[in-house]
Amino acid sequence: MTLPIPRPERLARARLLAGPEVGSAVAEALARATGRPVERGGSVEGGPYVYVGAALPDALRGEGLVWFHSVNAGTDALLGAGPWPDGALLTRTVGRMGERIAQYVLAWVLAECQSVPEFAAQHARAEWRRIPSELAAGQTAVVHGTGRIGSAVAGLLRACGIRTVGVVRTPREVPPGFDAVAAADEAVAARWVIAALPLTGATAGHFGADRFAGMGGATFVNVGRGATVDLVALEAALRAGSVGRAVLDVLPDEPAAPGDPCWRLPRTVITSHSAGITADDDVVTDFAACLRALTGGRIPPLAVDPTRGY
Amino acid sequence: MTLPIPRPERLARARLLAGPEVGSAVAEALARATGRPVERGGSVEGGPYVYVGAALPDALRGEGLVWFHSVNAGTDALLGAGPWPDGALLTRTVGRMGERIAQYVLAWVLAECQSVPEFAAQHARAEWRRIPSELAAGQTAVVHGTGRIGSAVAGLLRACGIRTVGVVRTPREVPPGFDAVAAADEAVAARWVIAALPLTGATAGHFGADRFAGMGGATFVNVGRGATVDLVALEAALRAGSVGRAVLDVLPDEPAAPGDPCWRLPRTVITSHSAGITADDDVVTDFAACLRALTGGRIPPLAVDPTRGY
Repeated sequence: MTLPIPRPERLARARLLAGPEVGSAVAEALARATGRPVERGGSVEGGPYVYVGAALPDALRGEGLVWFHSVNAGTDALLGAGPWPDGALLTRTVGRMGERIAQYVLAWVLAECQSVPEFAAQHARAEWRRIPSELAAGQTAVVHGTGRIGSAVAGLLRACGIRTVGVVRTPREVPPGFDAVAAADEAVAARWVIAALPLTGATAGHFGADRFAGMGGATFVNVGRGATVDLVALEAALRAGSVGRAVLDVLPDEPAAPGDPCWRLPRTVITSHSAGITADDDVVTDFAACLRALTGGRIPPLAVDPTRGY
Repeated sequence: MTLPIPRPERLARARLLAGPEVGSAVAEALARATGRPVERGGSVEGGPYVYVGAALPDALRGEGLVWFHSVNAGTDALLGAGPWPDGALLTRTVGRMGERIAQYVLAWVLAECQSVPEFAAQHARAEWRRIPSELAAGQTAVVHGTGRIGSAVAGLLRACGIRTVGVVRTPREVPPGFDAVAAADEAVAARWVIAALPLTGATAGHFGADRFAGMGGATFVNVGRGATVDLVALEAALRAGSVGRAVLDVLPDEPAAPGDPCWRLPRTVITSHSAGITADDDVVTDFAACLRALTGGRIPPLAVDPTRGY
């Protein structure tokens, strides 16, 4: 990918702007990291400027924008809001998100094996009844998405003895955390199918009727983006049994209202987009890492290609 | 420890007896492993004999008993039922119990960090509400019991980035799975305290008022033996906050009746002695491994010292 790397002299004289999503503690830390004041909104006639925030105000979609650092990991909403300004670098905050999402996935994988919700309910009824557990070790998880998040998820599952297969669009080397790779249309018998895809033109509706039909009763966990899943197809698969259970952190439309039919999906838990929170520290840490890369003339690993969306 | 290792020629002519706890499939597999028929109960005047079962019938507590293989991992009930016959080797079934119990512990550790029971309840109410997660990685777990089970638990927690401290009676080398060791009376700040102790004269009531008072709000998980815990002291600690939550797989008196006060312990889940089930395969595999060791003149690693109880 070819990314617009700001020229060092332009970056050196850029003003630093922060969106309303950036709290005062983060703003102060950004000021310390860059050695310049953080401006809020206001005029930008005196570009170039660097912007840190969640959304890009229309007034700033000009040539003056050198670099936009997103406080979020997902950039689909940001990129969907309008054409990305030519020559503006986009980077994002991932923080310890891979680690957080991996622990979320493992928690739900093991919760199912160990009947955690069932024991909690049994306890509430003062009922002593042995429930046999299932060993996660030795079983297989297929992970769609082999980037930072997918690799972190796979690495942690693997540490628990689970075999991990990464789904890739084109055959390539096995990414970190995985035991093997498979093509998206390849049938892999799996106990779990983990979705960790970004939302792009190519991944919208990725999980549809055909894909669900081939899951053989696996538990489906979505920690990527809601719109990668066709919920009508998921419901049909849950009713038919080709999907055994579902754990959905994300939905195509969030938040779900109390009357939303998603709450009535069989054998499903929805967790209100909680798996991959980013903390204030993460924003500052990742921004500073990007800045170090740029001043050293390197492409920041957290750079996003606006045409691909990741 | 000095253990009574059966003389090979005595072992070679021993009869094979199995208790009523041994199902027919296991009995057949034992017959294949030993090349001799499995006898059920009956007369044993023609010793020597090997016995496989859960409890030792009084009629068999004689000199003829060469080797008793327990189908369970815990041997406290067996050893508590009467004096152990002189010269009889005791071995036990552990199977994949370490792995199973480790996955149980990690499941409950992560379930707490990721609010699994809370999300299940929220989902049932069709409520969309973000609950911040807690990263398990980087925190500390203290594990009482550094044998096979404790080591397996520590090893898995460690694979998830949790620092593991093993409690030992006498200072010694750090056992497998642990980052460090500490003495039982040493104060170690921990997010989790895991009990994985066998029940012996030295461990009964090990977790009493003093020990609970020093836990600093940690979550207490017992996967060892129920009687290592003073439940009255645990309740007081839960009410005082020195124990934050408790997950109890085992109780001093099992099963707990619906009216048992244990069900009303605050912030506690009881899981009906489900963490460390042994499967039929485990009994055969472990018996066969002991037999191989004995015919090779070695002490089986699954041998139990009757005077220590583990």
